[in-house]
Amino acid sequence: MFVRHPDNPLITPQNVKPSRPDFEVIGTFNAGAALCDDEVILLVRVAERPLHAPNGIVLSPHLSPDGDLVVQEIRRSDERYDTSDPRAIRDRITGGLLLTSISHLRLARSKDGVHFSVEAQPWLAAQPPYEEFGIEDARITPIDGSYYVNYTAVSHYGVATGMVKTRDFRQIERCGLIFPPANRDVTLFPQKINGLYYCYHRPMPGMFGSMNMWVATSPDLTHWGQHQRVWETKLGGWEAGRVGGGAPPVYTERGWLSIYHAADPQQRYCLGAFLTPHDDPTRVIAYSPQPVLSPEAPYEVEGFFGNVVFACGAIVQDDVLRVYYGAADERIALVEARVADVVDHLAAI
Amino acid sequence: MFVRHPDNPLITPQNVKPSRPDFEVIGTFNAGAALCDDEVILLVRVAERPLHAPNGIVLSPHLSPDGDLVVQEIRRSDERYDTSDPRAIRDRITGGLLLTSISHLRLARSKDGVHFSVEAQPWLAAQPPYEEFGIEDARITPIDGSYYVNYTAVSHYGVATGMVKTRDFRQIERCGLIFPPANRDVTLFPQKINGLYYCYHRPMPGMFGSMNMWVATSPDLTHWGQHQRVWETKLGGWEAGRVGGGAPPVYTERGWLSIYHAADPQQRYCLGAFLTPHDDPTRVIAYSPQPVLSPEAPYEVEGFFGNVVFACGAIVQDDVLRVYYGAADERIALVEARVADVVDHLAAI
Repeated sequence: MFVRHPDNPLITPQNVKPSRPDFEVIGTFNAGAALCDDEVILLVRVAERPLHAPNGIVLSPHLSPDGDLVVQEIRRSDERYDTSDPRAIRDRITGGLLLTSISHLRLARSKDGVHFSVEAQPWLAAQPPYEEFGIEDARITPIDGSYYVNYTAVSHYGVATGMVKTRDFRQIERCGLIFPPANRDVTLFPQKINGLYYCYHRPMPGMFGSMNMWVATSPDLTHWGQHQRVWETKLGGWEAGRVGGGAPPVYTERGWLSIYHAADPQQRYCLGAFLTPHDDPTRVIAYSPQPVLSPEAPYEVEGFFGNVVFACGAIVQDDVLRVYYGAADERIALVEARVADVVDHLAAI
Repeated sequence: MFVRHPDNPLITPQNVKPSRPDFEVIGTFNAGAALCDDEVILLVRVAERPLHAPNGIVLSPHLSPDGDLVVQEIRRSDERYDTSDPRAIRDRITGGLLLTSISHLRLARSKDGVHFSVEAQPWLAAQPPYEEFGIEDARITPIDGSYYVNYTAVSHYGVATGMVKTRDFRQIERCGLIFPPANRDVTLFPQKINGLYYCYHRPMPGMFGSMNMWVATSPDLTHWGQHQRVWETKLGGWEAGRVGGGAPPVYTERGWLSIYHAADPQQRYCLGAFLTPHDDPTRVIAYSPQPVLSPEAPYEVEGFFGNVVFACGAIVQDDVLRVYYGAADERIALVEARVADVVDHLAAI
């Protein structure tokens, strides 16, 4: 039912200027999306790394406690470090992780939702201490006249969820961490339900436990509680590895529609969808037994980290759901479907 | 400065009846403490396991989704399972954990704080789904005329923090999960500070990150936010492995006194102490460079899991701080010190 846009991919690293002359852009992906005035706004995750890594060296850029950029050099031959994952370097002694790139959020705007103009400078750059390894995977939710932007804050403390708010995408107010480590993939509902705000979140259990989607409530969007699991991994199949929030839930006639991501144990990421009643985000009433989008197009299968489709944003225009998603952790692409078709496609529970 | 009580240990498994005739009590430890009327109340973690494990078998008791007790039999010779830890069995295929005992909370009361009468039945028993492996390590905090009891809820979803409240230790109101997995060792401040409640909590990072103490605020004790780290592990030494909350913070003339736990990488658990200003629980102003209590007494060194002192509760009577602590994950013991002596002992930061 989802149709890939013929202009896909819409944004690639080649379209985007690095934030520093000594950096290159290696990923433009996992963008939050919103309608603002007559434009489509994307907050794109831009992953950069230092130019010119010497032979046999992996570079890890991050911020010092004072906020200065530091580039750590890791020899591939150093047995202390596991450099087999292109995204991260594991320190076998401390168990710690270093990233091979550092991400910030970049604003892109478009009149037609297809042709985007990407700003030359970061919209939101990382700050120590909780963002020393970068900020990733924004979700934008319009609530009460402001846009709330939550994102993944990465540091040696772990992976947490930060938030900022803005009225116009110019002035930005930082709101701190809304979830401590380890938690990401937070999607906010755009209005109060029974007097409380709601979100989905994805705790990453420490010693044991699987990667499930949870729901929480808040009186003020800052403080969260009443945690319950809402959607779980399933043994054997496309949802066996992990599930987590994608785009912020979309109001439809028949309930709240959530586009979420799921990965199998081989880290192939698909999109799924489920529906909850208007008055109860904790109860899934219909779901997609099979993915609503799987990595099949060349720009989804091949790339920095292949076989990944991962949505952080969706908008509705003229009853059409337009889902902006990261493809292969490298590019931004678009799929479209009539909202009613997506909802009709779901199986009742 | 802390002096062990000569009657230590005060409560041992031999003093406590099992909750079922087919169970034995293997641990009475990590108790929350409070003053209620003219009594000292302890909520003791009682760990039980089924009697009569056949040779070569480890038993794992837990609750079914309907709340029925299930005892799973694991063969020590089965290479799928790592049974080397007396506390837990790791499934090498799924990464999942099973526990060798199941805990509940048992009420004990005393007029003198030394001789306790332990009730015959659980005060709070585990409920599925978030407590299917048991409930552990209660902290009791008197706030606004009620006692708030937070505890560790263990299930296949991970380790989370649940809460109940009571006015009289008879009627119990369940409040759900206040922190999702993986998070434990929550200590609540007994009053609002600058219009908000505060707590310390201990996230357990998923992929990477160390086991530090964090602080959060709440308008209502249910919803928590504004997360910041407040006390961190230190390389090489008694705090190198993990740090986490112990007893709920105690109001003193010079600030809030927190007794916390720290473990080294060999899992030797000690107690430390720090002080924060009356108006700012996020800022440590004095601390204990060395432990204020280390496992040295025979009942602390030897036991179910030796070399552990671990406090969940403390009370103040006549300017004396009485800290009830778990010894060797098996028994409850008591140390005492003048509050002023503990505070004087700390080094300014």
